[in-house]
Amino acid sequence: MSADATWQTAAAQERARLASKIEASGCGAAAPYKVARDVLNVAQLPLEGLMSSAELEITGSSVEGLLTRLRSGEWGAEEVMRAFRRRAVLAHELTNCLTQVFFDRAIERARWLDAEFATNGPTGPLHGLPISLKNQIDVEGEQMDLCYVGWVGRVAKKNAVVVDCLLEQGAVLYCHTNMPQALGSGETVCNLHGRTVNPHNRALSAGGSSGGEGALIALHGSPLGVGTDLGGSVRVPASFCGIYGLRPSYNRIPFCGTSNAMQGFEGIQSVLGPLSVSVDGLKTFFKAIVDWEPWNLDPLALRMPWNEPAYRLVEHGDGKSLCFGFNRNNSVVKPDPPYLRAMDMLEKALVAQGHKVIDYSPPDAATGEAILTSFFSAAGDEEVKRECALSGEPPIFAAPLASAPAPQLSTHDYWQLCLKRRHWVKGQLDDWEATRLKTGTGRPVDAIISPTAPYPSFRHDDALENLYTAVCNICDYPSASFPVTAVDPALDVKGEPHDFASSFDRLNYERYDPEVYRDTPIGLQVYARKGEDEATIRFAEICAAALEASR
Amino acid sequence: MSADATWQTAAAQERARLASKIEASGCGAAAPYKVARDVLNVAQLPLEGLMSSAELEITGSSVEGLLTRLRSGEWGAEEVMRAFRRRAVLAHELTNCLTQVFFDRAIERARWLDAEFATNGPTGPLHGLPISLKNQIDVEGEQMDLCYVGWVGRVAKKNAVVVDCLLEQGAVLYCHTNMPQALGSGETVCNLHGRTVNPHNRALSAGGSSGGEGALIALHGSPLGVGTDLGGSVRVPASFCGIYGLRPSYNRIPFCGTSNAMQGFEGIQSVLGPLSVSVDGLKTFFKAIVDWEPWNLDPLALRMPWNEPAYRLVEHGDGKSLCFGFNRNNSVVKPDPPYLRAMDMLEKALVAQGHKVIDYSPPDAATGEAILTSFFSAAGDEEVKRECALSGEPPIFAAPLASAPAPQLSTHDYWQLCLKRRHWVKGQLDDWEATRLKTGTGRPVDAIISPTAPYPSFRHDDALENLYTAVCNICDYPSASFPVTAVDPALDVKGEPHDFASSFDRLNYERYDPEVYRDTPIGLQVYARKGEDEATIRFAEICAAALEASR
Repeated sequence: MSADATWQTAAAQERARLASKIEASGCGAAAPYKVARDVLNVAQLPLEGLMSSAELEITGSSVEGLLTRLRSGEWGAEEVMRAFRRRAVLAHELTNCLTQVFFDRAIERARWLDAEFATNGPTGPLHGLPISLKNQIDVEGEQMDLCYVGWVGRVAKKNAVVVDCLLEQGAVLYCHTNMPQALGSGETVCNLHGRTVNPHNRALSAGGSSGGEGALIALHGSPLGVGTDLGGSVRVPASFCGIYGLRPSYNRIPFCGTSNAMQGFEGIQSVLGPLSVSVDGLKTFFKAIVDWEPWNLDPLALRMPWNEPAYRLVEHGDGKSLCFGFNRNNSVVKPDPPYLRAMDMLEKALVAQGHKVIDYSPPDAATGEAILTSFFSAAGDEEVKRECALSGEPPIFAAPLASAPAPQLSTHDYWQLCLKRRHWVKGQLDDWEATRLKTGTGRPVDAIISPTAPYPSFRHDDALENLYTAVCNICDYPSASFPVTAVDPALDVKGEPHDFASSFDRLNYERYDPEVYRDTPIGLQVYARKGEDEATIRFAEICAAALEASR
Repeated sequence: MSADATWQTAAAQERARLASKIEASGCGAAAPYKVARDVLNVAQLPLEGLMSSAELEITGSSVEGLLTRLRSGEWGAEEVMRAFRRRAVLAHELTNCLTQVFFDRAIERARWLDAEFATNGPTGPLHGLPISLKNQIDVEGEQMDLCYVGWVGRVAKKNAVVVDCLLEQGAVLYCHTNMPQALGSGETVCNLHGRTVNPHNRALSAGGSSGGEGALIALHGSPLGVGTDLGGSVRVPASFCGIYGLRPSYNRIPFCGTSNAMQGFEGIQSVLGPLSVSVDGLKTFFKAIVDWEPWNLDPLALRMPWNEPAYRLVEHGDGKSLCFGFNRNNSVVKPDPPYLRAMDMLEKALVAQGHKVIDYSPPDAATGEAILTSFFSAAGDEEVKRECALSGEPPIFAAPLASAPAPQLSTHDYWQLCLKRRHWVKGQLDDWEATRLKTGTGRPVDAIISPTAPYPSFRHDDALENLYTAVCNICDYPSASFPVTAVDPALDVKGEPHDFASSFDRLNYERYDPEVYRDTPIGLQVYARKGEDEATIRFAEICAAALEASR
């Protein structure tokens, strides 16, 4: 950046650069897709005039639907990539979800895959599958800006390990998607790339921090994307946008080589996880990665291959007559009415399949909340301030830093916080284990079901609360989110005030308005014990199938 | 402690308390075992007049030898416990290895096991096996002093998870063993319990920090003990005392509920591991713990059951024609002559079994050394000073704190250190992976062999260096140490000065004197990749068998 340029100029230039790359692809110019700004729900717009029926069929497919036809040769990788390119551009024009595109490389790679296919058959389990990447996942030769204006022009020197892995397994990578400035908030907004809005209700947030993925995939601009989750950043946008998401356990998916904020923070670890248009995308992604043995390239990756008996729920009575613990209120914030309706729907659906549901709320949520807040402010705001100073852009702080820019902790005090976390997760495990006496199955509850947030989405720049998802990050519980319903003002009427457990509980009650939240998808999450990733994926499939059967 | 008592008085009272408990057991008084202080090697003293031939046979057995006879009923648990009690007392009188005894509980438990056996057969895979515990592993109702004078009288309220697990699997627990004050050094000495000396050469150290275990087991006062390893604290005393030791990967053996210094430090994690009189003890301990599914009680424990194919080395060509990387010099300190002789012995033994050996030294040892030093001083010396102030005892600092009591790091700077570690372990993994091109097996080196220290032992209070072992702690490589030979002044003559790589390299050369180090056991370690615990155990068995066959 030249010395006299303002950060606003630099950001405008960056957005123009993206627009011109999109225009050069022929998709933007060929499909002027103007929708009045006051049309809030753009998730179901008719596309017949803009895309061919073949393109609509391709981009309307599930992940397994795509892979089946790619593997059989019915669809070529280039054809598939071109269809998603077109629809990704439409999604971007509607929600501002993209930050970088590398369409040319993608088309070239797709052609190579097609040529390989002609002689040697499919390249790996992801042969020809277009996969989008959150804007922190390094792709060699592409810009890595972490959504800082001052980082424009920085180019990744190496692929993140997960990128090498996806390429080896046959994927086609074609874009980066928006996220908050340095992942510092739960809303997908930054000074560099702007704000990503919710495709179901553009007055509201797509969620975050993987909100670009959420919006892009919800609009079928990608069948599967890679996000990161430190406190709910995969599951919240997946839920708000009406798609599927998975937060794996620590170090099963290789994080090595991915850019990040707060690097070296290990009290809670960020993990990579998929967001997908279909529930089958969760298993497809997870299995393709672990089958590649990522521990040979990521020194922190766990040597845990795909566990088929765990997926078949052998430790959970083979998946018959499961008992789910339903957390309808975490004692910090009561979820809004549509979540309680969604939980009732899911309960009925599961019971109809022969499963059991009991009420279960993890204990001592207030301490979990305090641990979370303390961790995120432990190193103060030096890093964000320093990186923002490169361009002069203003920092966008997450709540803990914005409300209390406390001096950072000493190492000794930081260790006390890590110790406090250890004690808290022991209490969480013991309490879960004690449900053994209540389930009637001889096992503790097989999995826990809860909302992904207390609110369906939020108005831009609203205050946020993420303990419903973050409990899994603190405890390292693998968790999958899945769509259940959407806000319907006729069904989800505001209730009477309850005894508010916290100031946020009151705020959340007060700001609930089913008209404002209209059409916003409502997702739930299911989570299991640390390391039970395969079981968690299966639980999500069971929930999705039960809901489908109940419709 | 009363206000006017000195710490010396308190420590003397504590030692008198131990002596009177020992006397009350009838073993101390019945066996006045006076050996002149200037007899240095007490490892092979004749015991015929002091113990019965049955007791000698029992305490001279391997772990599997004991378990086989306990399971068949040939030996009773009480009989076995009584024999080890007697020999533990002898070991203590010779080396000062015990800190607490709970013989009465142990005999009572052994009787219970015998009664159970009579009606129901053996209780678990460790049925009747006496197991000793390092003085940081909480046993409900027993003192937990962490070797601080000011902690005398503190009683553990709960068993550590590993203690519950060992009891459930049939073990008999009977004593705590000595370690450094708050684990703060590599030498087993504290103001409270005194110094543990090496049974093979009492002028020298037993190693540390699990030095009480090393001395006790070497003298057959215990067949198997539980130590902890943060930088070599299982493998170094095992090696110095001529027994076997295992440092498992992080969170395979449950650490939860164990007392520790520097709690909340997770940049490198301390792990529990066995020390044993026989190589079979490593597998027996490890398998008994993981078979018990510790992840149901320890929230950090990994959900990784015993992996039999990994133990059978399926990923290593079924264990046929292995290729070992021999690290004969880590470029920080050249090992003393007996280590190089031991490596030559092992090389010949392995080659005779059809395996291959290539030279391999992990890269950039200096950075590893710097990371280690920085981590151990990151929180300054507040904790040790505070706990020592309780009694007025002087702190005993490990090298980094003693030499540079720097102010502690901020959280931000601590995170930078964690990040530096991540980058370093990535470099270590990539370099190991690159050996694929040199082995001729199509695999990288299957395991790495190195000394456990650059010196065979050390004179009391000498300066220490632990990168040979600590590389495994930083990288989370599972590592097993095993005895190979002992210092023989006739064979291990001092060499000419070499180009010294560091000031410690010079110091180590200068202080080497084969007469001083006479009789000290020389152990090596074999280590594999993170999570390859089962393979590491097998590699240790292969090394031990090859050495046995070569004799």
